[in-house]
Amino acid sequence: VSQGAAARPGAITFPLGFRAAAVAAGIKPRGPDLALLVADRPCPAAAVFTTNRAQAAPVVVSREHLQGGYARAVVVNAGCANAATGPRGLADARETARLVAEAVGCRPWEVVVASTGVIGVPLPMEKIRAGIAAAAARLSREGGADAAQAILTTDTRPKEVAAEFAAGDRSARIGGMAKGAGMIAPNMATLLAFFTTDATVGPHGLRRALQGAVGDSLNRITVDGDTSTNDMAVILASGAGGGSTIGDAATDDAAFEGALTDTARALAGMIVRDGEGATRVAEVRVEGARTESDADRIARTIAESPLVKTALHGGDPNWGRILAALGRSGVELDVHRVDIFLGDVWVAESGAARDYEEPAAAAALREDPIRIRVRLGEGRARGWIWTCDLSHGYVDINAHYRS
Amino acid sequence: VSQGAAARPGAITFPLGFRAAAVAAGIKPRGPDLALLVADRPCPAAAVFTTNRAQAAPVVVSREHLQGGYARAVVVNAGCANAATGPRGLADARETARLVAEAVGCRPWEVVVASTGVIGVPLPMEKIRAGIAAAAARLSREGGADAAQAILTTDTRPKEVAAEFAAGDRSARIGGMAKGAGMIAPNMATLLAFFTTDATVGPHGLRRALQGAVGDSLNRITVDGDTSTNDMAVILASGAGGGSTIGDAATDDAAFEGALTDTARALAGMIVRDGEGATRVAEVRVEGARTESDADRIARTIAESPLVKTALHGGDPNWGRILAALGRSGVELDVHRVDIFLGDVWVAESGAARDYEEPAAAAALREDPIRIRVRLGEGRARGWIWTCDLSHGYVDINAHYRS
Repeated sequence: VSQGAAARPGAITFPLGFRAAAVAAGIKPRGPDLALLVADRPCPAAAVFTTNRAQAAPVVVSREHLQGGYARAVVVNAGCANAATGPRGLADARETARLVAEAVGCRPWEVVVASTGVIGVPLPMEKIRAGIAAAAARLSREGGADAAQAILTTDTRPKEVAAEFAAGDRSARIGGMAKGAGMIAPNMATLLAFFTTDATVGPHGLRRALQGAVGDSLNRITVDGDTSTNDMAVILASGAGGGSTIGDAATDDAAFEGALTDTARALAGMIVRDGEGATRVAEVRVEGARTESDADRIARTIAESPLVKTALHGGDPNWGRILAALGRSGVELDVHRVDIFLGDVWVAESGAARDYEEPAAAAALREDPIRIRVRLGEGRARGWIWTCDLSHGYVDINAHYRS
Repeated sequence: VSQGAAARPGAITFPLGFRAAAVAAGIKPRGPDLALLVADRPCPAAAVFTTNRAQAAPVVVSREHLQGGYARAVVVNAGCANAATGPRGLADARETARLVAEAVGCRPWEVVVASTGVIGVPLPMEKIRAGIAAAAARLSREGGADAAQAILTTDTRPKEVAAEFAAGDRSARIGGMAKGAGMIAPNMATLLAFFTTDATVGPHGLRRALQGAVGDSLNRITVDGDTSTNDMAVILASGAGGGSTIGDAATDDAAFEGALTDTARALAGMIVRDGEGATRVAEVRVEGARTESDADRIARTIAESPLVKTALHGGDPNWGRILAALGRSGVELDVHRVDIFLGDVWVAESGAARDYEEPAAAAALREDPIRIRVRLGEGRARGWIWTCDLSHGYVDINAHYRS
C-alpha cells in the first residue's frame, strides 16, 4: 500500500515511551474487550473526531480532555459504544477517565476514552472498573498486540502498522492500530485508530500532521457510508526517541507527516479489505475536476453506490453504473466530457461507450485492487477513495437480530 | 395506500381517448419489450425527468418534444436504455419518434420516447422499426395491460392504477402504469411512469399537477438511492371525458391533482414493494424540522442507510442506526432533542435510549409497512419517504455478470 510503513504486530508500542495491555473485562460475551495504552510521561497529543452530529459520550469527553493538547493514557472498550446514553453516558465516560487516572497515576483530563459497540446501552461500569485495574497491572512494552486485538468488533483480524523516519540525526518510530467498519452484536460501524510516536513533536504540529495524514487515508475509505457516532483517531508523541524536535526544520516536518500518512494509509487499506462481507477492494480515482471537493464528492458517490458495489461483487465491468453515479453526485459537470477507465481499459469516452474488448474489461475487475478511473475534463483537481464490494456477507452481518 | 385510486389491469387505457399495444420486438431475450400508447388526437401533455446529469438520449429528445406542451403518442422499450450512446443514441431516439409518427399519423415532435435497460449499448433499430409497425397495427382500448407488461425489466409484476374524480358535473378518469427500480440483464434501475386522463386540462395545469403529484409520491420512494439516467414520468390529457376544463374552478383543480397524486402514490407503493430483493417495506416520517428540505434530507438519509436497511431486513429494532444516520445527514440539528418511534413504541427520547419493551419494538418491525418516526424538535416542517430492506436478493439481482 505504501512505502516505509509495514504491518507489525505490537506496532502501537513499537515507539519508545509507551506501554499497553488488554483484558477480557466481560463487556463482550467473550474475548478481550478493554485495552489500555499509557505513555511513560504526559505527552503532546491530538485527535480528530467523527463529524456525525450524534456524538457518543467518549467523543465528547475525549474532545474536552484533548483541548490542552496533552495526554498520558488512552482507554478503549469494545462491546458498548456508550452512545445515545444521555447524561449518564457522559458521567460514565468521565468516571472511566478518572479510574484510569487513578490506576496509572495521572490526571483524569490526561486520559482519552474511546468506545465501540452497541448503541443506547449504558457502560457496565463494574466491569469497566475491574478491567481497568487488571489492565493497569499488566502494562508492558510487549502489550501492543493484545491491545490491537481487544479493540476489534466484527473485524476478522487485527490491524497494526509501524514505520520509521529520519528525525534529524536520529530515527524516530510511528506505530498505529485500528479497528474497522465492523459491527458488534451487531451495531454501529465504527472506525477507531490510535497512533504513537517517539518523535519530539509539539501539540500544534501533531494536530496538523494528524489532520493531514487522516485526510489522505482514513477519510478516504468507505464501506457503507454510515459515519459512526464514535469515530476517533488519536496520536500521542512521547519524544522518547531523542531525535530533534519535529517542525524545527521543514524537512523533519514533511518526513514525519509522510510517515504518519503512510502508516494511516496502510491501516486504511487493512480496514477496507476487512470491510464487512468484503470480497474485493476498489480504488476510485477522479481527475479533471474543478475542485478537490468536487473530485472527492464524485469519488465517494461512485464508491458508495449500491449498484456499483454489487457490480464489483459480481466482477461485472458495468461502467454505466459509474456514469450514472457520477451524474447524480450533485456536482456541476458536463457528462459529454467524461472518460471512464476500468484498470487500463478505456471503456467510455465523452460520456459514451467506446469500442473496447469486453474480456479485457472483465479482467480489470479481477485485479486487486480494482482500479476505477474517471476523467471529468472540467479542471485539474483530483480525488480518490477506497471501497469494497457489497456482498451477501454484508447483509448477513448486519441483518442479524441483536443478541 | 390511498383513497380513490386502485389497482386496475389495463389502467392506462381506462380513460377515454387512448389506445395501447405491446409486442415482443426481440430487444430483450424474451417477452414483450415494446409498448405504444396513442391518443386519438394530439393532446396536452407534461413530463418530469431524471435529475441525473447523465441523461439518456430518450430523455433529451422527449424533453425537446414536450416543450410545446402537446403530444400524441408514447413509445417505450425495455432491454436497452439508449444511454451513454453519444450522437448515435440521439439520432436513434429521434428516428424512433419519426417511425412512430409515421405509423400512427402524427408529427415526430408529438411522440414521447422512453427507454430502459442496458446502458452503453445502441438501440437495435431494425427491431425497433419492426416492433413499432407491429404495435401500431394492434392498438386498441384493450391494450393497456399488455403495455404495462412490456415496460417491465426485473419487476416481478406489472404496476397499474386507476382513479376517478369529479370534473364539474361529469366524472373523469385517470390511469397510470409504471415500472420500478428493477434491473435488466442487469443494468440501471429505472423508474418510468405514464399517466393518462380523459379530463380536459391545459398544458400548464397538467404540468403543475404532475409536478405536485410526483413530488408527493414517486419522488418519495427509494430502493438504493441510485437515480437513473432514464427516469421519466409523463401524462397525457385527452379531454375525451367531456367534463369541464380543469382549472376553471378551484375545486376541479384540487380534485384532479388529488386523484393524480393518489394514483401516483399507489404506483409508488407498488414500486417500493417490488423493489429489488425487497422483503419488507418501511415508511420513514420526519417531523419537527426547520424546513421541508431538511425533513426530506433526513428521511432520505435514514431510508438509504445500508445499516438501517439491513436492520429492517433482519427485523432488528436497531434505532441506534436511525440516530446515527440522521446525525450524518448534513442537516444542522441538536441530537439531544431527537425522539424516535418504531411503530407506536417510543424508543429514544432527547437523543438517548428510553426504557421501552424490547418485544414491543421487535413487533413494530413485523408491521407492514414498518413505521419509523423521528421528531426533531427544531421546527414544524415534515417529510416522509418509503423504502424497502436490503437483502441477499438485492445483491443477487445486481451482482450477476451481464448476459
